[in-house]
Amino acid sequence: MKIKKLKPLLVKIFKKNGLSTDHALISANALINAELVGAYGHGLSRLKMYCDRLNKKVINPKPKIKIKKISQSISHIDANDCIGFVAGDIAIKTAIKNAKKTGIGMVAVKNSGHYGLSGYYAEQAVKKNLIAMVYTNAPPAVAPYGALKSLFGTNPICFGCPTGSKIPFILDTSISMINRGKIRVAARNNQKIPKGVALDKFGKPTTDAKKALAGVQLPISGFRGSGLAWMVDILSGVLTGGNHSGKVKDPFDDFSGPQNIGHLFITFKTNLFVKNFNSRVKNNIKTIKRLPKIKGIKEIMYPGQNKYKRLKMNTKKEIDISGVVKKDLEILKN
Amino acid sequence: MKIKKLKPLLVKIFKKNGLSTDHALISANALINAELVGAYGHGLSRLKMYCDRLNKKVINPKPKIKIKKISQSISHIDANDCIGFVAGDIAIKTAIKNAKKTGIGMVAVKNSGHYGLSGYYAEQAVKKNLIAMVYTNAPPAVAPYGALKSLFGTNPICFGCPTGSKIPFILDTSISMINRGKIRVAARNNQKIPKGVALDKFGKPTTDAKKALAGVQLPISGFRGSGLAWMVDILSGVLTGGNHSGKVKDPFDDFSGPQNIGHLFITFKTNLFVKNFNSRVKNNIKTIKRLPKIKGIKEIMYPGQNKYKRLKMNTKKEIDISGVVKKDLEILKN
Repeated sequence: MKIKKLKPLLVKIFKKNGLSTDHALISANALINAELVGAYGHGLSRLKMYCDRLNKKVINPKPKIKIKKISQSISHIDANDCIGFVAGDIAIKTAIKNAKKTGIGMVAVKNSGHYGLSGYYAEQAVKKNLIAMVYTNAPPAVAPYGALKSLFGTNPICFGCPTGSKIPFILDTSISMINRGKIRVAARNNQKIPKGVALDKFGKPTTDAKKALAGVQLPISGFRGSGLAWMVDILSGVLTGGNHSGKVKDPFDDFSGPQNIGHLFITFKTNLFVKNFNSRVKNNIKTIKRLPKIKGIKEIMYPGQNKYKRLKMNTKKEIDISGVVKKDLEILKN
Repeated sequence: MKIKKLKPLLVKIFKKNGLSTDHALISANALINAELVGAYGHGLSRLKMYCDRLNKKVINPKPKIKIKKISQSISHIDANDCIGFVAGDIAIKTAIKNAKKTGIGMVAVKNSGHYGLSGYYAEQAVKKNLIAMVYTNAPPAVAPYGALKSLFGTNPICFGCPTGSKIPFILDTSISMINRGKIRVAARNNQKIPKGVALDKFGKPTTDAKKALAGVQLPISGFRGSGLAWMVDILSGVLTGGNHSGKVKDPFDDFSGPQNIGHLFITFKTNLFVKNFNSRVKNNIKTIKRLPKIKGIKEIMYPGQNKYKRLKMNTKKEIDISGVVKKDLEILKN
């Protein structure tokens, strides 16, 4: 489907489910972006879930979002259980404004929901020539090191900065060894999963996807990845007033109340300490790209480069709508 | 050796090599702390190296350190090639002051050197009831994903926060799969190294320690760890005015000039967005510790807990001086 046809359709669907035109447009744009960069797990496959949550009022369609100014640099947003995309959008815009004014901005959000890709918000700050660090927690998916039960979300660590070229540096990396969706697909197709990414329900390493689904996913690099996930839970949950320590509800499965996800955005100017950040970072990237390469590697890529390529390529094409999503759209639009 | 005997000895040695009493004491304290927490690679084993660099004036014994105020929150320090410990000490104190004043502090340092453990500085902020994020780069040790040559340092990611108890949460995690020192020891003892931590000089995975020394160390979790290391190089090197992209010299091997390491410190108050951070974080930790455990795991530990235990235990004992260090001390004190 062409983007210019898909976008008004999504806006119509979101409005039908109670969102204002503004909020519907913000949400449609975020979903389309996820499709364009190839992050399908954050794209149209979630549309029905968002609509279901709006209908059951566990996402608040008419939120009264409060932005509290703590200082010229720091703001606190109570998102009033709005759709996560809108909370993320307001938060990054506030963080950009604060950083432009004082050099550094910090914005914490509570009472939000799943907002899609952290990198999507970091990009907006980078486009304004700022550096951005973005943290969010998420429903339980990964077991803390030593535990036999999932508690941490995939809690991404996200960092973006300008590169002196049109392709931004956007690191947006989950601390889970493997995406739960991938385990689900492997289980359905009777495929094995790689070694070292999951444990069975007894805490033993397994490559059996079905056993892994009954067990837990592992953090990257054991104790270290577990520590990084814990850090993200503290920064985005404990600090902000959001839910934490495994209390964020699964948006697909748990309609007993809002998610109360927390996010934290830190933004700052690139020229605080050096005048020539852009030429410095350009040099940095050039030096690294010129290193001798392992056989089979054509180019050393920086984080965000592949995603940008996919975005450019896919923007020219129609968006591929899978069978399941097609059905969702049919039902939701009427 | 007893700490109260070791400390004046270290101060004497540093002063003999040109440091002021103040700077000698800061440096002695940092080295002793590293020994006490069991981070021997950052402790007395480095004393001779620091003295050699002071003697050859690639560490400036009488630095004129400049602290430039960018705003009430933000400062830039030109450490004038001083010993890293002193730069770190001044920087974290400045970051603490800034955060206490405005809620958030950011301090960048250029022209610094190896400053030991990032966690040592984060702890100082946590003791003042602040959250701290600390980044530093380091000499080449790890190959970027796809490269056949080391360029990134072990570039630790460090995060500290209060826990509502006396043991702080201090995550201080290298992005290298393995410590180079450990490969050196394995090579000397003809031991194998674990799978997946290093490549030989042709870019093939190896468990042969000697081949690994001639090859490269790998980042944690492939492209993701490589991205995290890259982020740290940008934050602590490109942004601050320090060296970056592999240009930080190895302090043991390269006396051709100062290291010009860069550091970045971000500090902020815990009560910016919630009044009860301490009880929230206490709850968070309690919930995680109560999870069912994998067989053989007695307690789920948070980052910093083990180090704190070692510190408490070792502070009561004498510091064990190895044969090599004993020799160093004999030569250096006269």
